[in-house]
Amino acid sequence: MKHFYHDDSLTLHTDLYQINMVETYWRDGIHNKRAVFELFFRKLPFGNGYAVFAGLEKVIQFIQGFRFSEEDLEYLQNEVGYKEDFIHYLKGICFTGTICAMKEGELVFGNEPILRVEAPLAEAQLIETALLNIVNYQTLIATKASRIKQIVGDEVAMEFGTRRAQEMDAAIWGTRAAYLAGFDSTSNVRAGKLFGIPVSGTHAHSMVQAYKDEYTAFNKYAETHKDCVFLVDTYDTLRLGVPNAIKVAKELGDKINFIGIRLDSGDLAYLSKEARKMLDEAGFPNAKIVASSDLDEYTIMSLKSQGAKIDSWGVGTKLITAYDQAALGAVYKIVSIENDNGKMEDTIKISSNPEKVTTPGLKRVYRIINNTNHHAEGDYIALADEKLPEKRVRMFHPTHTYMNKVVTNFTAKELHDEIFSKGELVYEMPCLEESRDYLKQNLDALWDEYKRITNPEDYPVDLSQKCWDNKMRNIEEVKEKVEAMKK
Amino acid sequence: MKHFYHDDSLTLHTDLYQINMVETYWRDGIHNKRAVFELFFRKLPFGNGYAVFAGLEKVIQFIQGFRFSEEDLEYLQNEVGYKEDFIHYLKGICFTGTICAMKEGELVFGNEPILRVEAPLAEAQLIETALLNIVNYQTLIATKASRIKQIVGDEVAMEFGTRRAQEMDAAIWGTRAAYLAGFDSTSNVRAGKLFGIPVSGTHAHSMVQAYKDEYTAFNKYAETHKDCVFLVDTYDTLRLGVPNAIKVAKELGDKINFIGIRLDSGDLAYLSKEARKMLDEAGFPNAKIVASSDLDEYTIMSLKSQGAKIDSWGVGTKLITAYDQAALGAVYKIVSIENDNGKMEDTIKISSNPEKVTTPGLKRVYRIINNTNHHAEGDYIALADEKLPEKRVRMFHPTHTYMNKVVTNFTAKELHDEIFSKGELVYEMPCLEESRDYLKQNLDALWDEYKRITNPEDYPVDLSQKCWDNKMRNIEEVKEKVEAMKK
Repeated sequence: MKHFYHDDSLTLHTDLYQINMVETYWRDGIHNKRAVFELFFRKLPFGNGYAVFAGLEKVIQFIQGFRFSEEDLEYLQNEVGYKEDFIHYLKGICFTGTICAMKEGELVFGNEPILRVEAPLAEAQLIETALLNIVNYQTLIATKASRIKQIVGDEVAMEFGTRRAQEMDAAIWGTRAAYLAGFDSTSNVRAGKLFGIPVSGTHAHSMVQAYKDEYTAFNKYAETHKDCVFLVDTYDTLRLGVPNAIKVAKELGDKINFIGIRLDSGDLAYLSKEARKMLDEAGFPNAKIVASSDLDEYTIMSLKSQGAKIDSWGVGTKLITAYDQAALGAVYKIVSIENDNGKMEDTIKISSNPEKVTTPGLKRVYRIINNTNHHAEGDYIALADEKLPEKRVRMFHPTHTYMNKVVTNFTAKELHDEIFSKGELVYEMPCLEESRDYLKQNLDALWDEYKRITNPEDYPVDLSQKCWDNKMRNIEEVKEKVEAMKK
Repeated sequence: MKHFYHDDSLTLHTDLYQINMVETYWRDGIHNKRAVFELFFRKLPFGNGYAVFAGLEKVIQFIQGFRFSEEDLEYLQNEVGYKEDFIHYLKGICFTGTICAMKEGELVFGNEPILRVEAPLAEAQLIETALLNIVNYQTLIATKASRIKQIVGDEVAMEFGTRRAQEMDAAIWGTRAAYLAGFDSTSNVRAGKLFGIPVSGTHAHSMVQAYKDEYTAFNKYAETHKDCVFLVDTYDTLRLGVPNAIKVAKELGDKINFIGIRLDSGDLAYLSKEARKMLDEAGFPNAKIVASSDLDEYTIMSLKSQGAKIDSWGVGTKLITAYDQAALGAVYKIVSIENDNGKMEDTIKISSNPEKVTTPGLKRVYRIINNTNHHAEGDYIALADEKLPEKRVRMFHPTHTYMNKVVTNFTAKELHDEIFSKGELVYEMPCLEESRDYLKQNLDALWDEYKRITNPEDYPVDLSQKCWDNKMRNIEEVKEKVEAMKK
């Protein structure tokens, strides 16, 4: 049997082709050419009007730990078959470049660089796969959670998805993204410990079954926990569960804090309304009704529109897997590279799919904030060395450019912070609560038309004239190459 | 700012309610009652005719490491607020029970216990969440991969999904599940190292961009790598990419092993047919065409039906996220518990949803293999203490029971192995290659009617008469309770 390696290093969490390319660069002596890569997605997920950036904390951890371990190198040499001189080069690699990124909790739109890497070509290439893996998932879940939280409103939203998450990292980082996006708590205790997220949960059906009946089970739970939420659907919600919960709450009176009941199956609209009546009639008008059972933003909206009496929403599968669109398609594209004379030169990738043509050049993203009403009027993408228009800026509809508006009294807020400078971490990561607040402020400054969960308006994301012209010039150059080849 | 904990223990990878219930059990003195829990899903994913069990290796790792760390306990006491005496109890907990499970690569169907835990109530409860998290994802991906592999057939299937996976664990364990299910390789180098999976990959668009043109890029790659697959769609597939690949291959001749080209965008049917012609005409009839670009079993089937000339399929997003159904709904239900007299007693959970009513009692699952043709005729679920019918068994359609068949000359193969016995690992885990072969054998023994990827027939999964009667008796008892409550 083969020898497998049991140490584990995230540096190897990359696609093989990255290492193959780096070998070519290194043997050809261009591995240290400066290159600029941008990370962005093309299309907003779930038909939403915005996305919420998450993933920076883990990106920072990954970059800080970026070094091949001894066993990584052994594996690459003995199993994959790279030669010793190249292995020796890989041994010395760490990240020495610069990374700029948006803050976690920033609102982000299609075709905007969320994160930019300026680094020696080889390093920039080796970190691609992990960066995409991290940002794609966490941004997806933060966006999904933000949609759900918009519908839940001021009521309580709890993340309950661990058992259905796509393995363990997803459970942990997914619930962090949900909390960032406004969820109130998680059921995952490990996430509570690692990120300081409030944890919540009471008991399962198995406890009722262990005690054979609800009356005994609720009593036993109440003896050992001051705060009580009783799960009432193990046998028959309205005929056994709710009556037993009420009976125990009445008998124990002030001895417990009867928070309420939880419904986990059946018609939640009907059951919650009936249970509400029963609780009110029994003298528990403040008892809360918690509901869970395959919920997402659409079901919650629909239950609310039917007048369901639910105070607290436990959301699992549909959130933690982003069930209706399980992947965000962010990509990482080279936009500029040092030429043989040491000057940076822009580069483009063409595709028969127009939206897949990249935008060349190192760019900055500005949010145009209206000074009168403090709302975001759109984003403006310019080349790094460009001077911004100061007085008036014309914001175009992203595809139908004949639809546009002029903004005059504005502030242009640059959305990138420097995270690593020449390999050094220079960014002080805000704590999760701060990022959560930051998102709230961002959402407050976004017009409602972009926040609607179905059919929102398109938020303007414009390229500056210079940036646009530069793109067209690069496309022309490729066309000329194609023509030359034909001859 | 709060103090967060930075050590990380998977033992805490559980829902809070599990620990709350355990507190009740422990204070009430029933935490050591023997309990039996079964892990199963109700409905096959993707409308497939079977599922492929995966996840056992990680379950074993998890159980072996199951102990709260010092910092876990500190967190539970200081932040969650459990009392010291209970923390002291948790400190001593490890897994002392018995776990039986199917082999990885076993075919599994709805409502069959994949895995069974017999353990002290508290321990069985604490491991639930992690077990579901692991088995749900890995089984989902193994099943998805098996569907895709059926359509790919004898051609090559490569897993390319890391960048779109739901965080890092999913990338790693998902690709392991894909390899188990018949995929040939992965792009993820870390998975290659950890599991001994063959790794594959050549170069990306960025390499072509770094060298400005394909001719230079392909030449540079060829100088540094013997085996060459050239990516031909950076600028214009048929006018630049393929001609450049052919030019380089001709010029270098025997100096390289020109394996072929890769298409990553555009109309793969059209492009592959045109590229095939160009390669053939240039004298490279053995050059392979590799394709990737949002592929899944349906797109591959459709491309094949259009006569696409593709030899090797790279599958990413749609596989690693199980995009069309991103979660398997496996649950973990208590079926039996020790009563106050030390005897095991069955237990049931009722639901207004008939398929959510559990089947009480400790059960065994047998595959009924026809001795004449060596094919599986169905599965038979019996109570543990039951004697199996030896001569003839009647296999019913799962829901339409008037459809049934009698099997006479058969072997009943029990599907569970003992994995842990009284806390000790007693199972020798087969290596991944063995599990892969085991799945192949299982698929060979499954009739084609259950393997069709759309509208397969329903594979029979029967409860023994005794098991059925026992379930009905348990339902009756609950109904009596409901009636008594009404009076």
